[in-house]
Amino acid sequence: MSEFDLIRRHFSALGPARSDVLLGVGDDCALLDLPAGQSLAVSIDTFAAGSHFFPDCDPAHVGHKALAVGLSDLAAMGADPAWSTLALTLPSADEDWVRAFGRGFAALSHAHGIRLVGGDTTRGPLSVTVQVHGFVPAGEAIRRGGARPGDLIFVSGTLGDAGLALRRMRDGAAVEPELRMRLECPEPRVALGQGLRGIASAMIDLSDGLAGDLGHILQASGVGAEVDLARLPLNAMVASAVADSGDWSLPLASGDDYELCFCIPPAHVDALHRLAGRLEYPLSAIGSIRAGSGLLWHLPSGDILDIQRTGFDHFPDRS
Amino acid sequence: MSEFDLIRRHFSALGPARSDVLLGVGDDCALLDLPAGQSLAVSIDTFAAGSHFFPDCDPAHVGHKALAVGLSDLAAMGADPAWSTLALTLPSADEDWVRAFGRGFAALSHAHGIRLVGGDTTRGPLSVTVQVHGFVPAGEAIRRGGARPGDLIFVSGTLGDAGLALRRMRDGAAVEPELRMRLECPEPRVALGQGLRGIASAMIDLSDGLAGDLGHILQASGVGAEVDLARLPLNAMVASAVADSGDWSLPLASGDDYELCFCIPPAHVDALHRLAGRLEYPLSAIGSIRAGSGLLWHLPSGDILDIQRTGFDHFPDRS
Repeated sequence: MSEFDLIRRHFSALGPARSDVLLGVGDDCALLDLPAGQSLAVSIDTFAAGSHFFPDCDPAHVGHKALAVGLSDLAAMGADPAWSTLALTLPSADEDWVRAFGRGFAALSHAHGIRLVGGDTTRGPLSVTVQVHGFVPAGEAIRRGGARPGDLIFVSGTLGDAGLALRRMRDGAAVEPELRMRLECPEPRVALGQGLRGIASAMIDLSDGLAGDLGHILQASGVGAEVDLARLPLNAMVASAVADSGDWSLPLASGDDYELCFCIPPAHVDALHRLAGRLEYPLSAIGSIRAGSGLLWHLPSGDILDIQRTGFDHFPDRS
Repeated sequence: MSEFDLIRRHFSALGPARSDVLLGVGDDCALLDLPAGQSLAVSIDTFAAGSHFFPDCDPAHVGHKALAVGLSDLAAMGADPAWSTLALTLPSADEDWVRAFGRGFAALSHAHGIRLVGGDTTRGPLSVTVQVHGFVPAGEAIRRGGARPGDLIFVSGTLGDAGLALRRMRDGAAVEPELRMRLECPEPRVALGQGLRGIASAMIDLSDGLAGDLGHILQASGVGAEVDLARLPLNAMVASAVADSGDWSLPLASGDDYELCFCIPPAHVDALHRLAGRLEYPLSAIGSIRAGSGLLWHLPSGDILDIQRTGFDHFPDRS
């Protein structure tokens, strides 16, 4: 058995068996059945050492996050996760690394009932590309373009935790374990995304930072918004960093939050509260959609903040 | 508009519009409709500079081949191509390279009616990952495991052309343009694969070389085979290289043929001949399936050839 076969063995059966997988890893293609009345939602993302994770990152965390990023995209459409494919590029056939990577990938696959159905392994600089596939009832996907004036804007969880972890790691400072987990092992908000079908008018996942990602909703919907920064959900460490520096870029533009940002018509607020009671993380109303364009940020002082409305762009190096 | 936006613009609409694409590039996920009664066939492949193509290769050819490799996998299942996704990793935002890459990718997309529905662009060492998605009527996919004793073994086109081109390029020798095109711009045998639904008992595409790939059919089917090397379809240059050296590895194990190898029950030979008349490339009967296991290669001299039954393994460097 070649080194390549050894690696392939790790990836022939990750995640739970599913009856809609007619043929998984091991033929020219995987063969899959989509349930009647459902649309297929797909998203592909590359996750590269140096750009998206530190090369010495725990490989189990790399495996977790490479899948989590895609699951967060499925959540942002309100989709039910189903299948994944994985293209792994490795500098060498490092079995320990591959085993740990597979462990992280498999654990998150089982948590969400998703099955790895196809893959490719290539020699080269460390990089992981994952495609996720999910189902959403026909006509019920939650797009970016449905926000209307008067809708309330919500975000899940807390913002800026991953950004603060990354800042500390770059500075060579100690990182609190819970912050590091928020950066390396984000929990995709799948149950929230599914629960928001029929409730939210627009949704996006926060991968690049609230400023840029909310901007995508506004652009796609042809609307503007105002956001009250005093209502941003911040944990104590991020709140303290913002207070010390007066710099809001950590919760607004540092990226990697993997929370959901969504818009709720006033008539659906009660339904949202019922959903919120079933979740283990908070949902926070941070502002509202208004007619026109532009994004106004109200500072706690009452002033209007003027920040550049850009999110994380993959081309400037992050590392 | 950032460099990243410029690149993204090239990939927002490659290939023809399709009514089954509810939402293409530009939201968290693409949304797709699968026709009733069809299964979904998917395959993902990475195509990396240095391992799979020379870094100075014409980027239009890189774009063509990155998609062709996936279309060849769809062909090998008998599937109808529908959609693609693309994860592109680039060392810099080189607009000329990206434009030419997109041109090659788009031309092949149009030729097969396939639409790019999602993508990701990352900074890093040059590498392309493509996932293809196709349809196949329920129960009609052609797998590797269906070969039965007495079936005839066929291959399309000619074997070893790409291998000879690669050998000459590595040696710094001149390469005949038609050989170079076979290496850099393979034509996936999509119409053949579709036409073989209901006719072939097993099929695989030749990406790693006939020896290894036919071996996969035999292993999956639990059968053996004999192949008559005098019947291998070779163009004059490959035939001459084999005759000069006595080395059959070029047509048997050099990879990158992207032809189809398939098995035909004797009762279906007439149907195959009717199909062959509609194709622009030859189909050649090269041997037959037999009970048991193992692969016997009959030399033109009448001797039995003993070669190692291994194909191209991505881990040993190719460049």
